[in-house]
Amino acid sequence: SSSSRIFLLLSLVLAAVDAQLISLNAMYGSLQSPNFPEPYPRETELRWNISVPDGFQVQLYFSHFELEPSYLCEYDYVKVEAEGEVLALFCGSEDTDTEEVPSQQVISSPRSSLSLLFSSDFSNEERYAGFVAHYSAVDVDECRDRSDEDLLCDHFCHNYIGGYYCSCRYGYLLHSDNRTCRVECSDSVFRERSGVLSSADYPAAYPKSSDCVYRIEVEPGFKLRLEFDPSFDVEDHPDVSCPYDYVKVQAGSRSFGPFCGDKSPGVIQTDSNLVQVFFHSDNSGENLGWRLTYTSVGSRCPVPESPENSLLNPVQSEYSFKEHILVTCKPGYRLLKCLGWWMSSV
Amino acid sequence: SSSSRIFLLLSLVLAAVDAQLISLNAMYGSLQSPNFPEPYPRETELRWNISVPDGFQVQLYFSHFELEPSYLCEYDYVKVEAEGEVLALFCGSEDTDTEEVPSQQVISSPRSSLSLLFSSDFSNEERYAGFVAHYSAVDVDECRDRSDEDLLCDHFCHNYIGGYYCSCRYGYLLHSDNRTCRVECSDSVFRERSGVLSSADYPAAYPKSSDCVYRIEVEPGFKLRLEFDPSFDVEDHPDVSCPYDYVKVQAGSRSFGPFCGDKSPGVIQTDSNLVQVFFHSDNSGENLGWRLTYTSVGSRCPVPESPENSLLNPVQSEYSFKEHILVTCKPGYRLLKCLGWWMSSV
Repeated sequence: SSSSRIFLLLSLVLAAVDAQLISLNAMYGSLQSPNFPEPYPRETELRWNISVPDGFQVQLYFSHFELEPSYLCEYDYVKVEAEGEVLALFCGSEDTDTEEVPSQQVISSPRSSLSLLFSSDFSNEERYAGFVAHYSAVDVDECRDRSDEDLLCDHFCHNYIGGYYCSCRYGYLLHSDNRTCRVECSDSVFRERSGVLSSADYPAAYPKSSDCVYRIEVEPGFKLRLEFDPSFDVEDHPDVSCPYDYVKVQAGSRSFGPFCGDKSPGVIQTDSNLVQVFFHSDNSGENLGWRLTYTSVGSRCPVPESPENSLLNPVQSEYSFKEHILVTCKPGYRLLKCLGWWMSSV
Repeated sequence: SSSSRIFLLLSLVLAAVDAQLISLNAMYGSLQSPNFPEPYPRETELRWNISVPDGFQVQLYFSHFELEPSYLCEYDYVKVEAEGEVLALFCGSEDTDTEEVPSQQVISSPRSSLSLLFSSDFSNEERYAGFVAHYSAVDVDECRDRSDEDLLCDHFCHNYIGGYYCSCRYGYLLHSDNRTCRVECSDSVFRERSGVLSSADYPAAYPKSSDCVYRIEVEPGFKLRLEFDPSFDVEDHPDVSCPYDYVKVQAGSRSFGPFCGDKSPGVIQTDSNLVQVFFHSDNSGENLGWRLTYTSVGSRCPVPESPENSLLNPVQSEYSFKEHILVTCKPGYRLLKCLGWWMSSV
């Protein structure tokens, strides 16, 4: 019936509560069965909760062990637990098919706490001396263990007793997350009419946690044309548009992007002589970045009508800003007067 | 001249004193050349003295290193020292035949302190960014390193961060030296007329730091005879008589020994029915000890004269305490009167 089940559950809870509890918070110590080296008492439950600071594990081993043997340790036993898991169950004084003794075994806690439960039943056929166990806090080498990838150092990891810290290679700065290495990358202004710019370290993976602004400024009258290399690799997301890393282009009032993924944005023809390329990277991912070549194209001019009896050189179907035309008189004519003729950009 | 030598010495001392000193006493940290990542200044001497608590070593390594190269590092250098010894001398930015850079090298201090000296000369041909180093306290595992044999644990050694402690096998007690394991061995009294006694754990090595008294008590009238086994092994000294471990025998007012070394004392015939065997062991040495068999011999009695017309049985040349003689009448005679005849011990 459900009431008897509740009773059973209650009994189990009470049995668990019955165990006397000893909290151990030192960095090392030892513990032993009651009355050691005299035989331990019957009908006894004793629990030791060992807790060390974060950044440490608990190591436990036994220097003496002698309990009543029983099939699967159902009578007297020592149980080692952590995080709700049973790490070991010991009884007897030698290994058998169904019982285990600790011997030289060193038990390590997965985190910073470990619990040991000693339990004896109502009778012992012989006298058993019990056990002596020793524990100590052991430093976790976070740099070597690397259990949690999100806590890893981007460049250098430095372990110390009880913790670790990160540092960055020469030329990088540690981000305020104390983990990733960013770059200063917003100082550069490109003033040449053409040039190449790329993510930092290209074609190696670009730095994390960085916000870069690349400014391209050419003379008014030119229009900047950007051409991204086909090889393009910026961290993306299958469903959301560029939530992590992205390239954005601002050209006058027009903006392009955000761009991410492995498909190059290709050619971007702007109408402006002032372009800003923004590049944002978050604190994870190893992507190779991007490179672009920019060129400046002069604005289109109206095709000039040639003055009477003159020749234009060169003769083109189109003329652009900053291109020069030489106007000469046809043979037998000479220039009488400047007609105030000029080219203007469209 | 000696005065110029003194002057030279003085200059060297002054040069050494000149170095600016930084004391680092934390459990971990980093240090870098002045102005890093900007080039380091010329004519600079800077010393870092790193000191961690006893029970720890200092570990040091570099995450960036770029100094002016020079033949045998005579211009700019980083020198790592401990206990007055130079552990490493670095300069340049890559290994050559005559210069070394730290690379991935981890330098460990022999004890709990380490010193780093940075020195730059009056000029640098190029700009060098200098170095970044990281140090941390690392626990010494005294149980594994066992550098000083006199500090070793006799039985079990338990390392913890910053120290260690010893404990003993079941049946032993930790001596007040917190290192050796003694036994309680003074409770036993041997009352049988013969028996065997030996050093604890015989024929395995006897416990250290122990004072044992074995008492043999038989009835008055008996004289105890001890015979040590030929195999005898008690720690001795080539010149001084038994300064470490020894066996002594006290029998009434007579004493025998001290005995030590590998020569068995052999047979000791005492005049007493009460004997104490003392055994002292100090806190070192692994010797196998001793074993003795004791027997009790009754005191000699005067050979009795047989009364007239009687027969004694058995007829012996000697009689000892507690031996019995049957006196019977010769055939044809009968006992008329008790003559008050008795045997007494000599």
